[in-house]
Amino acid sequence: MDYPILNSIKSPRDVKNLDDDALEALCREIRDCIIRTVSKNGGHLASNLGAVELTVALHRAFSSPEDAIIFDVGHQCYTHKLLTGRFEKFSTIRTEGGLSGFMNPAESEHDPVITGHSSNSISAAYGIYKAKRITGEEGTAVAVIGDGAMTGGIAYEALNNAGVGRSNFIVVLNDNKMSISRNVGVMARCLTKMRNKPKYHRFKFALSSFLLKIPLIGKFLNNTLFTVKETVKGIIYKNNIFTAMGFNYLGPVDGHDVLALESLFKIAQSYTRPSLIHVITTKGKGYSYAESSPKNYHGVSAFDIDDGAEFADKPTFSKVAGDTLCELAAKDNKICAVTAAMTEGTGLAGFAKEYKQRFFDVGIAEQHAVIFAAGLAKGGLKPYFLVYSSFLQRAYDQIIHDAAIANIPIRLLVDRAGIVGEDGVTHQGLFDVSFLTSIPNVTVYSPSNFAELSYRIEESADIANGVTAIRYPRGGEKPCGEFDISADYCINEGSSKKAIVTYGRLYSEACLAKQEDSGLNIIKLNKIYPLSDAFMEKLMRYDMISVFEESEKSGGIGEHLAARLANSGYKGALKLHAVDNKFVPAAKVYDSIVSEGLDKNSMLKSFTEN
Amino acid sequence: MDYPILNSIKSPRDVKNLDDDALEALCREIRDCIIRTVSKNGGHLASNLGAVELTVALHRAFSSPEDAIIFDVGHQCYTHKLLTGRFEKFSTIRTEGGLSGFMNPAESEHDPVITGHSSNSISAAYGIYKAKRITGEEGTAVAVIGDGAMTGGIAYEALNNAGVGRSNFIVVLNDNKMSISRNVGVMARCLTKMRNKPKYHRFKFALSSFLLKIPLIGKFLNNTLFTVKETVKGIIYKNNIFTAMGFNYLGPVDGHDVLALESLFKIAQSYTRPSLIHVITTKGKGYSYAESSPKNYHGVSAFDIDDGAEFADKPTFSKVAGDTLCELAAKDNKICAVTAAMTEGTGLAGFAKEYKQRFFDVGIAEQHAVIFAAGLAKGGLKPYFLVYSSFLQRAYDQIIHDAAIANIPIRLLVDRAGIVGEDGVTHQGLFDVSFLTSIPNVTVYSPSNFAELSYRIEESADIANGVTAIRYPRGGEKPCGEFDISADYCINEGSSKKAIVTYGRLYSEACLAKQEDSGLNIIKLNKIYPLSDAFMEKLMRYDMISVFEESEKSGGIGEHLAARLANSGYKGALKLHAVDNKFVPAAKVYDSIVSEGLDKNSMLKSFTEN
Repeated sequence: MDYPILNSIKSPRDVKNLDDDALEALCREIRDCIIRTVSKNGGHLASNLGAVELTVALHRAFSSPEDAIIFDVGHQCYTHKLLTGRFEKFSTIRTEGGLSGFMNPAESEHDPVITGHSSNSISAAYGIYKAKRITGEEGTAVAVIGDGAMTGGIAYEALNNAGVGRSNFIVVLNDNKMSISRNVGVMARCLTKMRNKPKYHRFKFALSSFLLKIPLIGKFLNNTLFTVKETVKGIIYKNNIFTAMGFNYLGPVDGHDVLALESLFKIAQSYTRPSLIHVITTKGKGYSYAESSPKNYHGVSAFDIDDGAEFADKPTFSKVAGDTLCELAAKDNKICAVTAAMTEGTGLAGFAKEYKQRFFDVGIAEQHAVIFAAGLAKGGLKPYFLVYSSFLQRAYDQIIHDAAIANIPIRLLVDRAGIVGEDGVTHQGLFDVSFLTSIPNVTVYSPSNFAELSYRIEESADIANGVTAIRYPRGGEKPCGEFDISADYCINEGSSKKAIVTYGRLYSEACLAKQEDSGLNIIKLNKIYPLSDAFMEKLMRYDMISVFEESEKSGGIGEHLAARLANSGYKGALKLHAVDNKFVPAAKVYDSIVSEGLDKNSMLKSFTEN
Repeated sequence: MDYPILNSIKSPRDVKNLDDDALEALCREIRDCIIRTVSKNGGHLASNLGAVELTVALHRAFSSPEDAIIFDVGHQCYTHKLLTGRFEKFSTIRTEGGLSGFMNPAESEHDPVITGHSSNSISAAYGIYKAKRITGEEGTAVAVIGDGAMTGGIAYEALNNAGVGRSNFIVVLNDNKMSISRNVGVMARCLTKMRNKPKYHRFKFALSSFLLKIPLIGKFLNNTLFTVKETVKGIIYKNNIFTAMGFNYLGPVDGHDVLALESLFKIAQSYTRPSLIHVITTKGKGYSYAESSPKNYHGVSAFDIDDGAEFADKPTFSKVAGDTLCELAAKDNKICAVTAAMTEGTGLAGFAKEYKQRFFDVGIAEQHAVIFAAGLAKGGLKPYFLVYSSFLQRAYDQIIHDAAIANIPIRLLVDRAGIVGEDGVTHQGLFDVSFLTSIPNVTVYSPSNFAELSYRIEESADIANGVTAIRYPRGGEKPCGEFDISADYCINEGSSKKAIVTYGRLYSEACLAKQEDSGLNIIKLNKIYPLSDAFMEKLMRYDMISVFEESEKSGGIGEHLAARLANSGYKGALKLHAVDNKFVPAAKVYDSIVSEGLDKNSMLKSFTEN
């Protein structure tokens, strides 16, 4: 396919100039382009397909970059990329050196902020909006947030802050019916057209200004009139959290009708109260496999366009975690699982079905998840919180305050720890080692293969105190031979005085290094923190120690070791290899491991250089 | 005063057995006891005085510890302590080895979880509640949360999770009219009595169950009936966020009427839907100075009961920060200040008054605050977020994701960094060095006196990239002589090969050590992270280096130094002194500094021992 219209769009201005007739064709081209590209590169499919018309309408009603448009999480920003001068580069999305799968200011002036983690868009947009009002700069800022992201507490904090005072700040709720649907009824949809007619709104505001001019009772009359009006609508709309928070609620509106959306966005801009526009979209729109099974097409690997089958479906650490929990739950009715809207991603689909009473999807709410898990533990259950490493960053305070201080036994299964690959900079699991090990009463394990992961999950069922974190990488296991999965650490001894210390996925690299230099001592940490005095004592016997870890160096295990060794008067050579004070961009996992100097060859080189 | 009734209460059971007449006298005794104790020990006064009757009523309606009662933040838990067997120890509150100023499970079985940081109570209580339902254990769990804490996103995440399904889970909103008051009108209060009559509710539920039994249209009729009813009430109540989230809303009710409260709590327990009970209290109730100026009596130092005057009112780092920002703002209209409900605590009262347009109190919402500040920066302003170290823990992910990755210039003024004293374990500012230095693109300063703090705040106005964090302790400055406040580090040289490396408040201790051993080299880090290669090169010349820091050791500057030194082949002795893998309990600041081995004498000893 040639994409003649897409090809002609060099900037959002060109979208404004399109005839109404061309819009439909444009949307068709965009869908086709997204499906083809994601089928090759993987990425977020269903959510992007649902937001095509919405994004076209946004670029017709607003003028990016003067108007900042922020797509929450970025699972829905592909169309935005295609319309803002990135069509030609679009085939590089989610590849090394290519376009990011999320919003990225380094990539385009049309991406005002980083997105990737959920629920930040309203806060960021409101900040930009306020700054424009204070500096007197032109333009506005719009947050586009999904119903899922609306479950995150930050979204509420932001609404709470933005809902007061006079402004024409706009939040667009892209409701693809995956979470928030209670306020949407058939009757409500019937009223949409009427509510959105500019004439009605003009009337309402004219009346308001007239009433408000009447001395003494004008304000009362005005309030009463519109309270009653709200109340009458309330019969159909029921109570609405957004109106309760001071927002002008517009909608629900059909999210696949470009012209209706466009006019609604323009109306909202004319208001003097913040507006929330409730847009109804169909996740996966236009690709039958994705429409009928949007959950499975949320984030996908490369797949076959014709039958929708994903190419790769190997066993993963996530699946092992979920399966192990199911086995445990069958024997022990105190086992329970908590997830923050990541049932599929963390391998919990089976558990959710099988042990419904003991399964808790709390929404995109990592903070609540940790405290809630601590509450479950306090109540005598054995909770496991399964969460991606980079999202667990959100619960740092809760791990400290609500679990570790009182030594409450909770288990964190930290998925996607280490390099994550194509999801890139916002999703790398490179901080958990640093932030978890900064907290007293936290024990951290980093299994290298499936058997070890299962063992640690099972073992942790019986912890009586403190936080146990078990971190494991995205994807499958790599060969790493036989070792004692129950030990705190394992030493594969060699004849030299040189030792590699490592853990997790990198142990397989160390095994490869050992094959080439059998004199090497390979020390695998199973429990990576805290480390015993006895272990530290053992380390003293080596003349050269090189630590390799898939983690930020600052605050990592290497630094903890350096401090302990210095304290013991170690006089040998110590070299730390880790991600050194940088954010790691998207690339294939193994390519990043090589470029960060954490592969077999880097291990061998560590003892020869300098 | 003798407190005859308080004296007779050994456990909450005794509260239930009191005659109605004795209740008023009990509340009087409690208030007197709280005022007298806080006037000596300092603490949270106004909020505790407001919650006396509420707490008495809770202990009459519920049975702690089978029923878990969780007081959010713990600013209102003194009465709870007095009624749960801790009256005799109450005079030790907030002293070393004494009662905590917050809830603490280590102290009593009546304190189910730690509180101290805001907005966690609903999550924790709901966890305990669910666990009880799953295990079949008796009892329930109740969250008591203030209107201020209700602005935190976690509260919303928890309501969102707890509002679904059948349960008799109860949230008590203690509304002392400091934040959420928009939904409370005169008419609303008039309706309270009617709504709360058990008869009315019994009728409503009888009718419901009758209607629901009618085939086909019963559910419709029932929904319609109650929707209309809600709507009619809606005229007076307006929209209400709690009903929108699935909670049964009861109230508002007078929070100083024990019997009314008691009966309402019992009614809510009989429901099969989660309830939110809206209780109106008067902050500072019963102490005229606190009632008329509750903001000033929120958290207080020791004061004179007769005229309410605080004993100590010395200049503090907080005040210097606020004053400096005011001076900057006068010259530069891009300077703005963000606080998460800590206007007074962080010294921003003057700024808030003077530069209203550029001052943002976003509620207890640290996550939003950081993203919002990044938005302001993106919009061309120069935002400073003033926040206590221990509360900044909540924004770890946002510092990474919303500021550091895209290198957006925001400034964090990290107040209460290091040991905080009487507020104890939940409020210690001991993690910020570890978590901030784990993040690329973050620069951290730790001024030792007021002049240095002012200098760094002024200098940071012009940063173009990245996050600048300036951390400073609670309270006032200590003498530390002359030094170059504009340098990255200062060396006060001595003739020996021994060096102390330190920063922030501990520099004054190092100066004292130097007075006793003039041979010592004292190295003060002004910029504590990152450290330059040139600086590290200089460190190599010393044979013995001892690092002292008011921070957790794990992930602290000492460990970073150890790693760098090891990498350079340093062969000297290195000793790290910091808080070693523990939480530090309440004590006077200097006592904790001594007990953690960070005072002058410990510095001198570091070079002689071993």
